[in-house]
Amino acid sequence: MSGTDYRKELICEGPVVILVEPQLGENIGMVARAMANFGLFELRLVNPRDGWPNERANAAASRADHVIEATRVYEDLPGAIADLQYIVATTARQRDMLKDVLNPTEVSSILRRAHDENTRTGILFGRERWGLHNEEIALADVMVTFPVNPAFASLNIAQAVLLMSYEWMRSGQGELNESAFRAPDSEIAGKSDLQNFFNHLEGALEDAKYYYPEARRERMTNNLRSIFTHAGLKQQELQTLHGVVAALERRWLEKRNKKTK
Amino acid sequence: MSGTDYRKELICEGPVVILVEPQLGENIGMVARAMANFGLFELRLVNPRDGWPNERANAAASRADHVIEATRVYEDLPGAIADLQYIVATTARQRDMLKDVLNPTEVSSILRRAHDENTRTGILFGRERWGLHNEEIALADVMVTFPVNPAFASLNIAQAVLLMSYEWMRSGQGELNESAFRAPDSEIAGKSDLQNFFNHLEGALEDAKYYYPEARRERMTNNLRSIFTHAGLKQQELQTLHGVVAALERRWLEKRNKKTK
Repeated sequence: MSGTDYRKELICEGPVVILVEPQLGENIGMVARAMANFGLFELRLVNPRDGWPNERANAAASRADHVIEATRVYEDLPGAIADLQYIVATTARQRDMLKDVLNPTEVSSILRRAHDENTRTGILFGRERWGLHNEEIALADVMVTFPVNPAFASLNIAQAVLLMSYEWMRSGQGELNESAFRAPDSEIAGKSDLQNFFNHLEGALEDAKYYYPEARRERMTNNLRSIFTHAGLKQQELQTLHGVVAALERRWLEKRNKKTK
Repeated sequence: MSGTDYRKELICEGPVVILVEPQLGENIGMVARAMANFGLFELRLVNPRDGWPNERANAAASRADHVIEATRVYEDLPGAIADLQYIVATTARQRDMLKDVLNPTEVSSILRRAHDENTRTGILFGRERWGLHNEEIALADVMVTFPVNPAFASLNIAQAVLLMSYEWMRSGQGELNESAFRAPDSEIAGKSDLQNFFNHLEGALEDAKYYYPEARRERMTNNLRSIFTHAGLKQQELQTLHGVVAALERRWLEKRNKKTK
């Protein structure tokens, strides 16, 4: 799924991602890669089990070098969030805490608003097996959880970071119904062009004695016109169809000419 | 991030996921795991490089056994989609094709509507390195692409499946602003309760000769009340604060009693 455009400037903004006591270098690398895909760039590690730097993290990061190189390590969570102003804690479990639990879409819109107001934000992700401790969650302003299958809830930290990073990117698109690129420019065919095509097609069918019995002509015509109308044909596609009809006409004419020879 | 609740019934519905010529067993396993997290269950492989079943896929699936066991293998793509009615092709690159390119949110709402009308749908994911060929995309009704960082677009197939599966789950939540669980029930404190707390706090501060100089009393009071008003305190949190004030009062009273002894 690589579609990197090296002429484009790298997007580097948004919340800090903070991994609390991550164990596997592979996961840290995959986190960096997930972040880079969606324009996040600032990664902090609290007390990583295997130290830092970590060769396995580099390998798994798949060229997200700008994230890996800027990664900073902290001894404890309070140190890692000291310069930030708003903290989100991810959790997969219900906690007995008086803290709002939002979904990723809600939280991302809060983070985006904060970003626009120059508020420094961070998102906490817990240990591979145990997540965050309650005293760590207590340092966060809000919790976020993912709408997973209750009977199969098994997101790893790289997947959780990917989803939050994706929602972050999505929250920045003025129009939520926006995609990175659209179909190549080709206008939807105008109705007069469509009518020209109907004339061409129906003329060819007439020659081919398609309309039989005569009583069904109107119905057959309407059905055919409906088919090509509800397809939302583009100008260019209409040209293609003209070609198809023309080709079939030629074949039919050739056949008839042979017979009459 | 495990939060599986084994009392809950497994969600199994939604679009078929079709991997075209996947190479690495690990990726297939991670795809199964991603699907299971968001309730998808039907996986099809077109001509997988290392055959099927695949031990590495089983290992990476992390207990998504119901997906792995039901996986079916096909020799070609037309065979894999023969029983389906609406096909989405994922792509990371602009294609010179007259086919709409939507974002995952748009496509998921189409897939959800189709699902509700019993239309059988599928989502195509291409090879690790090259994605889908144009003749494969031509078999799809629509294309979907992810809003990635243009200068770092490097989603692997498991990540792409995860994002589509997440959007699928999200599209099924009546209220987009819904999370799997909410904070434990505790009402926001009523204003009369808040007033009681102010009385308690201000009484304690009065005893402690906090309001000095007298001219600043009103301002000091207002500032304090503002702090506790804009925090949106819950009923239970207010009880906690009463306890805090009571404890400080006791300490202060003890100190004073000691001095006067």
